[in-house]
Amino acid sequence: MRMYDILAKKRDGGILTDEEIQFFIDGYVSGAIPDYQASALLMAIFLKGMTPHETAALTRSMAQSGDLVDLSSIDGIKVDKHSTGGVGDKTTLIVAPVVASLGVRVAKMSGRGLGHTGGTVDKLESIPGFRTTLDREAFFDVVRRVGVSVIGQSGNLAPADKKLYALRDVTATVNSIPLIASSIMSKKIAAGSDRILLDVKTGSGAFMKTLEDSIALAKEMVSIGEHVGRRTVALITDMDRPLGCAIGNALEVREACETLQGRGPADLTEVCIELAANMLWLAEKGELAQCRSLARQQIANGEAFAKLKEMVQAQGGDTSVLDDPEKFAPPNVCYEVLAQREGFLYAMDTEKCGIASVELGAGREKKEDPIDYSAGIVLRKKVGDFVRKGEVLASFYSSEESKCRTAEQTFTQALRIQDARPEQTALIHTRVTAQGVEMGNRS
Amino acid sequence: MRMYDILAKKRDGGILTDEEIQFFIDGYVSGAIPDYQASALLMAIFLKGMTPHETAALTRSMAQSGDLVDLSSIDGIKVDKHSTGGVGDKTTLIVAPVVASLGVRVAKMSGRGLGHTGGTVDKLESIPGFRTTLDREAFFDVVRRVGVSVIGQSGNLAPADKKLYALRDVTATVNSIPLIASSIMSKKIAAGSDRILLDVKTGSGAFMKTLEDSIALAKEMVSIGEHVGRRTVALITDMDRPLGCAIGNALEVREACETLQGRGPADLTEVCIELAANMLWLAEKGELAQCRSLARQQIANGEAFAKLKEMVQAQGGDTSVLDDPEKFAPPNVCYEVLAQREGFLYAMDTEKCGIASVELGAGREKKEDPIDYSAGIVLRKKVGDFVRKGEVLASFYSSEESKCRTAEQTFTQALRIQDARPEQTALIHTRVTAQGVEMGNRS
Repeated sequence: MRMYDILAKKRDGGILTDEEIQFFIDGYVSGAIPDYQASALLMAIFLKGMTPHETAALTRSMAQSGDLVDLSSIDGIKVDKHSTGGVGDKTTLIVAPVVASLGVRVAKMSGRGLGHTGGTVDKLESIPGFRTTLDREAFFDVVRRVGVSVIGQSGNLAPADKKLYALRDVTATVNSIPLIASSIMSKKIAAGSDRILLDVKTGSGAFMKTLEDSIALAKEMVSIGEHVGRRTVALITDMDRPLGCAIGNALEVREACETLQGRGPADLTEVCIELAANMLWLAEKGELAQCRSLARQQIANGEAFAKLKEMVQAQGGDTSVLDDPEKFAPPNVCYEVLAQREGFLYAMDTEKCGIASVELGAGREKKEDPIDYSAGIVLRKKVGDFVRKGEVLASFYSSEESKCRTAEQTFTQALRIQDARPEQTALIHTRVTAQGVEMGNRS
Repeated sequence: MRMYDILAKKRDGGILTDEEIQFFIDGYVSGAIPDYQASALLMAIFLKGMTPHETAALTRSMAQSGDLVDLSSIDGIKVDKHSTGGVGDKTTLIVAPVVASLGVRVAKMSGRGLGHTGGTVDKLESIPGFRTTLDREAFFDVVRRVGVSVIGQSGNLAPADKKLYALRDVTATVNSIPLIASSIMSKKIAAGSDRILLDVKTGSGAFMKTLEDSIALAKEMVSIGEHVGRRTVALITDMDRPLGCAIGNALEVREACETLQGRGPADLTEVCIELAANMLWLAEKGELAQCRSLARQQIANGEAFAKLKEMVQAQGGDTSVLDDPEKFAPPNVCYEVLAQREGFLYAMDTEKCGIASVELGAGREKKEDPIDYSAGIVLRKKVGDFVRKGEVLASFYSSEESKCRTAEQTFTQALRIQDARPEQTALIHTRVTAQGVEMGNRS
């Protein structure tokens, strides 16, 4: 087999065999296939596409290029959850304890913040003492005892994806549905869970800006899951506005705790119920409507919040900040952003909101930058609200006032205030399963 | 300017500016742009194409990446000729002396054999003493004194093309019309002639297998010539059968001499008259019909053959082999290939004929292999001839009989003998000028 022939085949729109894909991945990881052939193939894939079968084969080869986590020693159905990344997306902190409190096992490896989006690992590390790096046995042990553990990605998971992603990043081949789908799914498959719930964000704060692209990505990932025998469901949820009100690590942990205590923002609560219900459905806890009720019940009876505290304690974290968020280290500066005119808050460019929070210190501009866990934004007005001139639109938290002024510029550019009231849009756009796409507004 | 943005633009089917193309070529030659970005761009160009303006800009940037030969110190219109490569294509040895004997200056840098096709430099080197490496001044001096000189490519001509071609060769991006056209034309432009005649071969022995592709390539190259101010004409000539009867270096020199003495094969003579006529037309020697007569006249009166001998002498070659080809070093082995059945010689896979001659020793399997100048094939039957069982189809010349047996297998696979007489096909399919495409059989 020659890489040249594989390249020529895909260039001409041909369909690669499983063996050809395996040959490429093996050769690329070992270094036998050079970057310049891999990048030419990536461009050909970008422009000519891949069939669902090819995409699944690529995913499988990438997953098998490194460690495969074996969760079989943990009883029960293990359900994973993955979000494609958003602003103010603290759903894992809420959804994982909800379903774990009903006996569903969640052994989850999460990521750090990337660009304008936050990451669950960074959020958890804002809790004093919380350890996101556990060795395999300690991780399994927490899942067995508590039912849920969330740690950072550890071990050598899907190294082929890591190497290919770095190449895509410099060759303008990132935004290809089969390549994005296989990248995400290869890591999920290597992470070992039996069932996978995907939260595909769509809108101005998401990587996928249009519903059409989001549905295409969701379908591709669900198809991969079916091909490799991991039942997968995708929800396409709205990221045309930040989720909830808090953006920034400790601020989001606080909001997650409030939501688990039944006092969270309506939009965040609704999305979390739907995500939890789908994880419960995947774990065969009943019909979807029944699973929604179960999820609501675990928030109402306090068991979900108790489960979060149990996990935090098991991973060395100080649970007192969860009960009393005033105990979080306070920010140096609080800064209020005021409305310059009267009208309806019509739209928010959510990516810009995410960038503003990074400017405040809540994220990293460069990979090695430290994070200010206390920094971030609390929105005092949400899309659809009426605002009077001079009213507080948002509170900013940071280490320096100069950062607040920089972030304010970004943030005010993100907002559109106008006289007309915006139409209400759906929070949950679509549910994609192996059976197809269910459209419709669930909000 | 960032290479990433250039890649993304071409990936999305955008049109690159002259500055973007220059940035790419400069950066790639200097090493600032790595192979993996260049190969991704090549694949995007392969799949998305280039406009005539982009292709011309690419050609100009590649030509300017190295030495530009300045022929202005030589009086008169300098006309270059380029063939895309064929089997038995010894036309330069005939056409260049014909036009030089009429005062047209030919300062030509030729190539060596490549794959199944021969190269003029190898053919000339079969003449004892002939020097194909002259320094710039000696080269110019021969052109001034004799009117024609043919040497190997020397100096640092179009290094960007050299580097890109090596990359295309391993990334399945060779067969792209804009990339082939710009590669050929960048070297022709750097070589300095005022006018360019292109002989685009088409058929089973050519790189372009179909007339459609050949016309597309010819149009692209003529368009480049116009864009950069070098008047260019392309003839599309047949390579569905070897040209003439001789394949192999000394054998081809011999056939060229016979043709210059009016005793050459009809097909070879016809193609050479047409090529010479077009070079004369480019040099403004008259209407095309008049130029054909002039070319025929120079063969009939012996002046063209005298011009070849003059050039060979000026470049140190032994002209006695031209007058008496029996003086060429003889081959070790002569071997006859006989017809296995009776019928019409219906078709010849010309690429296979070329490979058979390489197997006999007339070409190189690897770049560093030596050439056996006496080796090759003389066809005793051509397509359209009737053959009796046991008649000689071809004579093989080689250093070893085992090579002849290997080559015989390849050669007989190349032939189709059947009862029906083949239709006669055109030798010269099309003429492409800036004014358009002239179709029609000139044979």
